Amino acid sequence: MKALRVEKKRIAVRDIELPEAGQEALVRVLLSGICNTDIEITRGYAGFNGTIGHEFVGIVEDAPNGQLVGQRVVGEINAGCGDCELCRAGDPRHCPTRTVLGIVGRDGAHAEFLRLPLINLLPVPDRIADEHAVFAEPLAAACGIIERTPVNRDKNVAVIGDGKLGLLCAQVMALTGAPVLLIGKHPEKLRIAERRGIETATAKNAGLRKREFDLVVEASGSASAFSTAVGILRPRGVLVLKSTFHGTTEIDAATIVVDEISIIGSRCGRLAPALDLLKRGAIDVDSLISEEYPLRDGLIAMERASRKGVLKVFLRP
Amino acid sequence: MKALRVEKKRIAVRDIELPEAGQEALVRVLLSGICNTDIEITRGYAGFNGTIGHEFVGIVEDAPNGQLVGQRVVGEINAGCGDCELCRAGDPRHCPTRTVLGIVGRDGAHAEFLRLPLINLLPVPDRIADEHAVFAEPLAAACGIIERTPVNRDKNVAVIGDGKLGLLCAQVMALTGAPVLLIGKHPEKLRIAERRGIETATAKNAGLRKREFDLVVEASGSASAFSTAVGILRPRGVLVLKSTFHGTTEIDAATIVVDEISIIGSRCGRLAPALDLLKRGAIDVDSLISEEYPLRDGLIAMERASRKGVLKVFLRP
Repeated sequence: MKALRVEKKRIAVRDIELPEAGQEALVRVLLSGICNTDIEITRGYAGFNGTIGHEFVGIVEDAPNGQLVGQRVVGEINAGCGDCELCRAGDPRHCPTRTVLGIVGRDGAHAEFLRLPLINLLPVPDRIADEHAVFAEPLAAACGIIERTPVNRDKNVAVIGDGKLGLLCAQVMALTGAPVLLIGKHPEKLRIAERRGIETATAKNAGLRKREFDLVVEASGSASAFSTAVGILRPRGVLVLKSTFHGTTEIDAATIVVDEISIIGSRCGRLAPALDLLKRGAIDVDSLISEEYPLRDGLIAMERASRKGVLKVFLRP
Repeated sequence: MKALRVEKKRIAVRDIELPEAGQEALVRVLLSGICNTDIEITRGYAGFNGTIGHEFVGIVEDAPNGQLVGQRVVGEINAGCGDCELCRAGDPRHCPTRTVLGIVGRDGAHAEFLRLPLINLLPVPDRIADEHAVFAEPLAAACGIIERTPVNRDKNVAVIGDGKLGLLCAQVMALTGAPVLLIGKHPEKLRIAERRGIETATAKNAGLRKREFDLVVEASGSASAFSTAVGILRPRGVLVLKSTFHGTTEIDAATIVVDEISIIGSRCGRLAPALDLLKRGAIDVDSLISEEYPLRDGLIAMERASRKGVLKVFLRP
């Protein structure tokens, strides 16, 4: 089968052996989405070698006892050991020996087929189109913010980054009733948020609103976002970091101490609440779709996805 | 009067005019303590010019309507505008126009006399010796951790730094019932904690206890402490930053996101709970006292306080 693979930072579409289900489920991928993390992996992030991709919708082709076979599914990307305290409590996201689809020790979704444990799969309601279902994983990541810090109408929220993750985060934050400001660079992307009633600003203009925000979500992956965020946070405000990117960031620790800021890392959310939002049509994902390529043109698609101004790029096997 | 002053990073004991009470209280300083922040100010931290020092015990000599005159007092160091929302709620620590004793826009405590608003002063119970009362401010800073994140017997706590702040933090953490590990370099300082039943380790040995701690308190002011802390924190663990130092720190933001760590800044606490602990003899501060100098020898005292192995140095006007 065809798969988009990174090996020693070199990326190529290769023909590899079709995986077998074994004790897991074999999923035929209908559509996969390119995430910035895929691009960071080609730069060395996570040190991953293998098939990249972790956003997908597909059909279960094979599984132990035929479970879910024929069903359309999306999947949680963290596959735990099943045996540690965290896994037994039903949340493998921090299992110390987990694999992560297309990121850590497990081939990913930019391929004709993928494997995941049955427990990771969620059936997709019929009314959700493939092109929407494939957003379940990044939308879950946006919803994950609420797991890490309370958000409600009394919080003044800013989201930095008008890319696909930022646009999802801004929409999820706005659903809590909180007033939300999306800070970005691209008028046409900011307009997507504006159509949902979300206020927008450039970083320069937002920077004038010093100490105004209770919560700032960093979803731009830009090193300069950190100082923008600290400048507009009120004392004892909360900065949520959503972007995973390769390399280090310089911070002024004294400001964090003096203003008693909290910096909270947030990675994966759960897929069930995200599917629910998609079913209800509560999130505009259509506006986030830029382009679609056949899997064999994976390299072109990755190049396009890394261009400024391009939002979600799909691969269709 | 004599005062230990920093002007353009140059430090000297100078003769300056005696301040007048005006609308505030005039306090005759009995004893002041040198904090690492004083040393950081001589390196450019906070850009402060004036009399340094913010840990003191003294006698009120003059005040509007004679209030508190003759009383022995310690003082909250943040003097608010009295008029903003925060000040009206009784907590000027984040008043945007605050001055801070010996740190921001207000002459400090390494002097024969200082001024503070009456509302900042707390009478010291007779049974607390001057040499203990002068610890009220740094002990309050240690207690401030509990304001910022819950600590209890179910949390596995590590404190990095066996200096005076680290030793106070470790003792306060241990009073919550939490098992506490103090990580430091100096056997004789670690022994102070051991005598209170606190486990100790070097950074190298502590580093082997990967992902074991729910809460790590950084009180060393060392840039390398950040990576030590991140290494021993469990996923979703909390890192409290207590040290204010001049300069930037490099962090690996991806680790914060992937392990969903929280980094929480903590600055000043309130003095009342600290005085209460001192009154109950719940904290060993005697072991933290290294040396005492007359105020006129302030330069020697500062030099001594910045030496490795030296803990609290007092100045007596």
